[in-house]
Amino acid sequence: MKTDQFAVIGLGRFGSSLAKELMSLGHEVLGIDKDEEVIDNMNRKLTHAVVADATDVETLRSLGIRNFDCGVVAIGDDIQTSILTTIQLKELGVKKVVAKAITELHGRVLERIGVDRVIFPERDMGIRVAHQLVSPNLLDYIELSKDYTIVELSVPRCLHGISLQDLSPRSRFGCSIVAIHKKTGVVVVPTAEQVLEENDIMVIIGSNAQIELFEEELTEEQIQLT
Amino acid sequence: MKTDQFAVIGLGRFGSSLAKELMSLGHEVLGIDKDEEVIDNMNRKLTHAVVADATDVETLRSLGIRNFDCGVVAIGDDIQTSILTTIQLKELGVKKVVAKAITELHGRVLERIGVDRVIFPERDMGIRVAHQLVSPNLLDYIELSKDYTIVELSVPRCLHGISLQDLSPRSRFGCSIVAIHKKTGVVVVPTAEQVLEENDIMVIIGSNAQIELFEEELTEEQIQLT
Amino acid sequence: MKTDQFAVIGLGRFGSSLAKELMSLGHEVLGIDKDEEVIDNMNRKLTHAVVADATDVETLRSLGIRNFDCGVVAIGDDIQTSILTTIQLKELGVKKVVAKAITELHGRVLERIGVDRVIFPERDMGIRVAHQLVSPNLLDYIELSKDYTIVELSVPRCLHGISLQDLSPRSRFGCSIVAIHKKTGVVVVPTAEQVLEENDIMVIIGSNAQIELFEEELTEEQIQLT
Amino acid sequence: MKTDQFAVIGLGRFGSSLAKELMSLGHEVLGIDKDEEVIDNMNRKLTHAVVADATDVETLRSLGIRNFDCGVVAIGDDIQTSILTTIQLKELGVKKVVAKAITELHGRVLERIGVDRVIFPERDMGIRVAHQLVSPNLLDYIELSKDYTIVELSVPRCLHGISLQDLSPRSRFGCSIVAIHKKTGVVVVPTAEQVLEENDIMVIIGSNAQIELFEEELTEEQIQLT
Amino acid sequence: MKTDQFAVIGLGRFGSSLAKELMSLGHEVLGIDKDEEVIDNMNRKLTHAVVADATDVETLRSLGIRNFDCGVVAIGDDIQTSILTTIQLKELGVKKVVAKAITELHGRVLERIGVDRVIFPERDMGIRVAHQLVSPNLLDYIELSKDYTIVELSVPRCLHGISLQDLSPRSRFGCSIVAIHKKTGVVVVPTAEQVLEENDIMVIIGSNAQIELFEEELTEEQIQLT
Amino acid sequence: MKTDQFAVIGLGRFGSSLAKELMSLGHEVLGIDKDEEVIDNMNRKLTHAVVADATDVETLRSLGIRNFDCGVVAIGDDIQTSILTTIQLKELGVKKVVAKAITELHGRVLERIGVDRVIFPERDMGIRVAHQLVSPNLLDYIELSKDYTIVELSVPRCLHGISLQDLSPRSRFGCSIVAIHKKTGVVVVPTAEQVLEENDIMVIIGSNAQIELFEEELTEEQIQLT
Amino acid sequence: MKTDQFAVIGLGRFGSSLAKELMSLGHEVLGIDKDEEVIDNMNRKLTHAVVADATDVETLRSLGIRNFDCGVVAIGDDIQTSILTTIQLKELGVKKVVAKAITELHGRVLERIGVDRVIFPERDMGIRVAHQLVSPNLLDYIELSKDYTIVELSVPRCLHGISLQDLSPRSRFGCSIVAIHKKTGVVVVPTAEQVLEENDIMVIIGSNAQIELFEEELTEEQIQLT
Amino acid sequence: MKTDQFAVIGLGRFGSSLAKELMSLGHEVLGIDKDEEVIDNMNRKLTHAVVADATDVETLRSLGIRNFDCGVVAIGDDIQTSILTTIQLKELGVKKVVAKAITELHGRVLERIGVDRVIFPERDMGIRVAHQLVSPNLLDYIELSKDYTIVELSVPRCLHGISLQDLSPRSRFGCSIVAIHKKTGVVVVPTAEQVLEENDIMVIIGSNAQIELFEEELTEEQIQLT
Repeated sequence: MKTDQFAVIGLGRFGSSLAKELMSLGHEVLGIDKDEEVIDNMNRKLTHAVVADATDVETLRSLGIRNFDCGVVAIGDDIQTSILTTIQLKELGVKKVVAKAITELHGRVLERIGVDRVIFPERDMGIRVAHQLVSPNLLDYIELSKDYTIVELSVPRCLHGISLQDLSPRSRFGCSIVAIHKKTGVVVVPTAEQVLEENDIMVIIGSNAQIELFEEELTEEQIQLT
Repeated sequence: MKTDQFAVIGLGRFGSSLAKELMSLGHEVLGIDKDEEVIDNMNRKLTHAVVADATDVETLRSLGIRNFDCGVVAIGDDIQTSILTTIQLKELGVKKVVAKAITELHGRVLERIGVDRVIFPERDMGIRVAHQLVSPNLLDYIELSKDYTIVELSVPRCLHGISLQDLSPRSRFGCSIVAIHKKTGVVVVPTAEQVLEENDIMVIIGSNAQIELFEEELTEEQIQLT
Repeated sequence: MKTDQFAVIGLGRFGSSLAKELMSLGHEVLGIDKDEEVIDNMNRKLTHAVVADATDVETLRSLGIRNFDCGVVAIGDDIQTSILTTIQLKELGVKKVVAKAITELHGRVLERIGVDRVIFPERDMGIRVAHQLVSPNLLDYIELSKDYTIVELSVPRCLHGISLQDLSPRSRFGCSIVAIHKKTGVVVVPTAEQVLEENDIMVIIGSNAQIELFEEELTEEQIQLT
Repeated sequence: MKTDQFAVIGLGRFGSSLAKELMSLGHEVLGIDKDEEVIDNMNRKLTHAVVADATDVETLRSLGIRNFDCGVVAIGDDIQTSILTTIQLKELGVKKVVAKAITELHGRVLERIGVDRVIFPERDMGIRVAHQLVSPNLLDYIELSKDYTIVELSVPRCLHGISLQDLSPRSRFGCSIVAIHKKTGVVVVPTAEQVLEENDIMVIIGSNAQIELFEEELTEEQIQLT
Repeated sequence: MKTDQFAVIGLGRFGSSLAKELMSLGHEVLGIDKDEEVIDNMNRKLTHAVVADATDVETLRSLGIRNFDCGVVAIGDDIQTSILTTIQLKELGVKKVVAKAITELHGRVLERIGVDRVIFPERDMGIRVAHQLVSPNLLDYIELSKDYTIVELSVPRCLHGISLQDLSPRSRFGCSIVAIHKKTGVVVVPTAEQVLEENDIMVIIGSNAQIELFEEELTEEQIQLT
Repeated sequence: MKTDQFAVIGLGRFGSSLAKELMSLGHEVLGIDKDEEVIDNMNRKLTHAVVADATDVETLRSLGIRNFDCGVVAIGDDIQTSILTTIQLKELGVKKVVAKAITELHGRVLERIGVDRVIFPERDMGIRVAHQLVSPNLLDYIELSKDYTIVELSVPRCLHGISLQDLSPRSRFGCSIVAIHKKTGVVVVPTAEQVLEENDIMVIIGSNAQIELFEEELTEEQIQLT
Repeated sequence: MKTDQFAVIGLGRFGSSLAKELMSLGHEVLGIDKDEEVIDNMNRKLTHAVVADATDVETLRSLGIRNFDCGVVAIGDDIQTSILTTIQLKELGVKKVVAKAITELHGRVLERIGVDRVIFPERDMGIRVAHQLVSPNLLDYIELSKDYTIVELSVPRCLHGISLQDLSPRSRFGCSIVAIHKKTGVVVVPTAEQVLEENDIMVIIGSNAQIELFEEELTEEQIQLT
Repeated sequence: MKTDQFAVIGLGRFGSSLAKELMSLGHEVLGIDKDEEVIDNMNRKLTHAVVADATDVETLRSLGIRNFDCGVVAIGDDIQTSILTTIQLKELGVKKVVAKAITELHGRVLERIGVDRVIFPERDMGIRVAHQLVSPNLLDYIELSKDYTIVELSVPRCLHGISLQDLSPRSRFGCSIVAIHKKTGVVVVPTAEQVLEENDIMVIIGSNAQIELFEEELTEEQIQLT
């Protein structure tokens, strides 16, 4: 795997989490923050961590930012600093610039000044948690389209010991179980004989209406088997 | 579908996004914030929105919080208010209490006082964005286990017009394509004749090593077909 | 006597008074406060005194807090720091953790996270002073139960030269004089011949109603002797 | 009992606790604080509660303070307001003026301007809690003199079922048990046949050395009976 | 003359001066500021003046900003508000958007988000005043190019009563007097017979070197006439 | 050219721009500001730059201010410091003192204490920009009197290829073209044969009414040639 | 006596004392302060008292300040407001303007803008109190010149019962007793027979050296009579 | 003359003026202030000047304050610090303690804690200036009693060349001229032949009514001579 160089500017809760994950994925990360205490804390966890004012072009130049593969502007709550830092990265010619937006309006400014991707972490996480709250068995999900979703569901008690043949999700609900995560490993495209057990996790693809129908019966724990 | 009642306390970026998504999923949401401007803004978007101090038990009682299905403490940056609000919800007997934590230590206090689930939105979003940054084609992903992942990848140019038979990801990389999201709809467990086209999105299950191998070849755009 | 090791965190008026009294009782005390001036002031009065942030687990570890017999969280007005410090002491495994609470709600959080004893110094002192204000001769008291109390009363002028036989508190008021503190020493369970003199202090046990009756006659200074 | 009129100025944690206890002891209390929220909260708990600046003599006059039996200056942390309020009460001719001091120096000023009693709640409570911390069985105590103390001790397991004759505290330790608080009531000056039981509480008078000796043996739970 | 509609956002020293001048030039001006006192003050001087938050798109819409001929963002010192207001005007489709920049970097952001003209009032005024300070007779000037300038000079004492023929600036310094502002009116392209008098003002065109040479001799007041 | 010595006190946007322009015009400049960061930044751009409190006469003396040719008080927003600094310069005997005023009242105080010239940069720039906004072709202008102005206009498309004879501004509008700035250089007092071309800039003298008439026809781009 | 009209601007300790004394001397006083509480307090004590911003010319005009006999600018600590208010009074044409200065520099600005008299109350009072401290019998004094002073001295015990003839201050010290203030009234130019008594006060004129000599002997209480 | 030692605590405008005057009167002065800049400024002007917290008894002890002849508490606006400092000086046993009061109430506290003299500089100066404002010729005055005053008046033009005989103030107004300050020196108890001249200053003793009558005629400049 190619090792990329990332500059993460702003090491708050979002930025520091992102920077540490990039490190654990095997990349090099330069962390920049104006708060000395933050840098002292992150110093041993990143390739480099420096106290700097990222709106100052001389500082960015002396750090060689222009040669990084990606600059992430993860500045917490200061829209002005976020915008001024972002334009400096763009004007220095950083290949890819990603920036966190705080409001919709902030996001539109970032797009206008040419960032490659705008991220709204709190907004997106709010949406993700909302889905998990309304479906007790839902562990995670991917929205494939407006209508289609992949969901990761824990197997409820009423399905323990049931084979996929008995459950027949496709014919009854329209959705498909494309994988089962069992203690012994992940079974991809499981056969009809596969039996669901305690602690198993199902991966299901289907339309939102199909999955909702399936989940509701699971929640009521009174699924009627054929 | 059963309509649940949620109380969301703290309508910052995370809390308001979560509250609005719960509304759009068909549930009832009471929003509480101490900032009048925030409430004015959210008033038409939620079932109810009130200016209140959520650490005051009389206020919570008069709002009938004890009868809600779930209380979400999404208070932004004030650890003390978060803890005091959470204990009030617990002592009032709210069925399920979910709370956002700002630091690890804050999270441990919340667990000790008995919340049902602690959420770290910025930390989790940082991890999620890090994965997307290092894989240019990665749109979203679910971690099934420490080793197994489902990923949603956009189909790169080098695979346009290629059939699954030619690509044969299972034999060459070990991972399986369990769905393809095409303009015409989602194809679940596609057959070998299925041809990948521009704008298609693949859903792939495999071990992390298998998927990384597959992604790298895609990124280099020089995949060798049989 | 065994010498115990106490860590007192927060050296405000309550904490510093407690720490100094523990020293004078022959124990070892480590004082911790975030205010350098406070520590300079207490340095010579305690076994050790250090400037430290007690919510930081590394700091607490390096001070060897886990081996102390008792940790007292006497933090003044900052509920958040009080809670975060307390949970650190509990998780480090300090044998006994005592914490000062500022409000009832704060007290309930401290109980939930498992402190061994919650103290409300201002509330308790308010109650104690109230009793002293309403009984002019009352010096101190112990509540044995809801109904029974031991009180320490200065002997009023109208009783100077009176023997216990003449006073006969048991038969007239129902309460007993169990000790008299005289210039010459303390007389425990005094005999009927004992005569009350100027500057004597009586220790009396009785029900609240009995003692109140006794005190009222004393206050009016018109006690009718047999 | 005569009902006295108290004015309590400053309704913080100490002042409000004192004021409420005075009410529960059957007296009339006028509470004064400059914080409207505090007064709203205390309004129903006291005879009267008003928002007022107690350094303004016209205000105090219009409240008729001069006719109160006792004025308590319980102002939290503002030494200047405490002093200026106290002098107003003195000059208005309030019969008895009691004031809370924050520091030794503050206490000396209060004495100079003629208050009848100076109280140091946090300092005194610190001392009281220190004694309780070092004696695990100690519930409460009264210092009779520098050397003599009355203590209230819970009866430890090793004394369950033991008669006072067997324990003979007087001959072995020099101190006397002047009362035992039992489930069935308080036994004053108990006879030698009295047997100690679970949950009993002893009231003991003795010199500090005698009581310390007694307590230590109790703590070690290896008391040697005759 | 066509009457244009201007919206001036930010009525500080620069904005209010600009708005009032536009009024005196016969145009309609809507003034917007978030400070009520400022608006009270400007109310009678502009067509309309409203207290509003110009970063709020609903506010701008309700004021009908999209139909204005020109929006001037004259916000004083708050770069963030300046940027967010500017993007709102652009997205609302205001025909021409002019914005004041505080720093070079701010100016570059404004250009990126598409403003039609960026103004640096303090910087430009600094330059203008510098020129006036170094040339005592210089009243005003226009830079035609890097090398050519028109200057307005008061006639120094040494030239009083001198005719242009005697002065012959063209032959001696290379620059031309294209107008003389006399008490009796402005003489455009004056003839050689024209005599300079006290209080006259000359308008001269020439290269910077020519004009500097001319001015120096004037300053030394020892011009040598032919 | 004689090199003058300027002291510029207050290096904000106006002061620093003025100071740098004075340097580029070949003079010596001492910059004074109380903000260390500002001085660090200007240090290499001026002859000298020092951190100092300019209201302190000893400081000004030690800097030798009395020997400077001109002192410019360009202090940003602090009227008091501006006045106190100005009076110090006057009392030290600086030859020429120029000061920036923030309000009319401030300006009147400065005049009373004897400054040689009061400048209102934001007010004057507001007026200048207003003129430019209302005349799309106007580049710059000098007000010769209340009625007469010199303007610098870009040549609009409808005049490309037109000779001055055809345009005959004098006879038709009353104003005179005294210079044309062409790519090849500046033509002073152009002859009637001169033809206007793309990118040419005209310098015109006339009464305000004459010039407005001329500009309006230009703006409508429908000028009727003879 | 003619009743004059005074406007006192700034009703701090100095201004309010001055305004009240002017009232008690039979004049009319308009008090102006920006603090509503101050005005409420002074309202009944002055002819008029209004909350107003005295730097605003319209306000001053509407109060008819121009017709007052004297304007006193007694503004406490805000040099800027003091200066701006003073210039408004001058420009409105108030007959006499007196202003309090805080520093020497402030005083010089006030003089430059034309106030009739500058007052330094704290400085002057410091000097006056210094004199009283060094002479225990000195009650008050007037400096007639650098060398000559009138002093008011209480008669020390050593002079009780002494006649002026015996004391003969003129011949022994050179200074003259021009008046004696006795219980029975003031004796102007007392005769030699006049006897000094307890509680008498002498008024003495002399050179500083003479008075100092006299005072020293008094202080030593060992004056040698002839 | 004996040299006394003064400690002046608080070197604001009043304190520093007092301290410097004490120095010029030949005494030794220790200045104390908590502001380092103030001390740097006063250092060369006093015998000693130290930065110190005067409420700290150890500091005062180490400075040897108890041996000073007089302690002056001239603390500006902080009533609490003024009181706490004053009590420290009293308890240390300083011979004479003088303190500046800010309000009447403050003054009463200072008296209660035993200061030898309370000073109200701004109040007293306000009274003094009021008198000077209402009498244009009044230079200074001493109040001998409620009714009798000594005034120092400049001689108005209408009295130039007039002898005391002609003026005969005693017979016409009842007041006496006890001294005249002339260019050539001070004439004590002047004879009737003495003639008043330009620039002379009269010292007059009389009742307030007498002096007022005299002054009014002077002010009207139409004094009728006999």
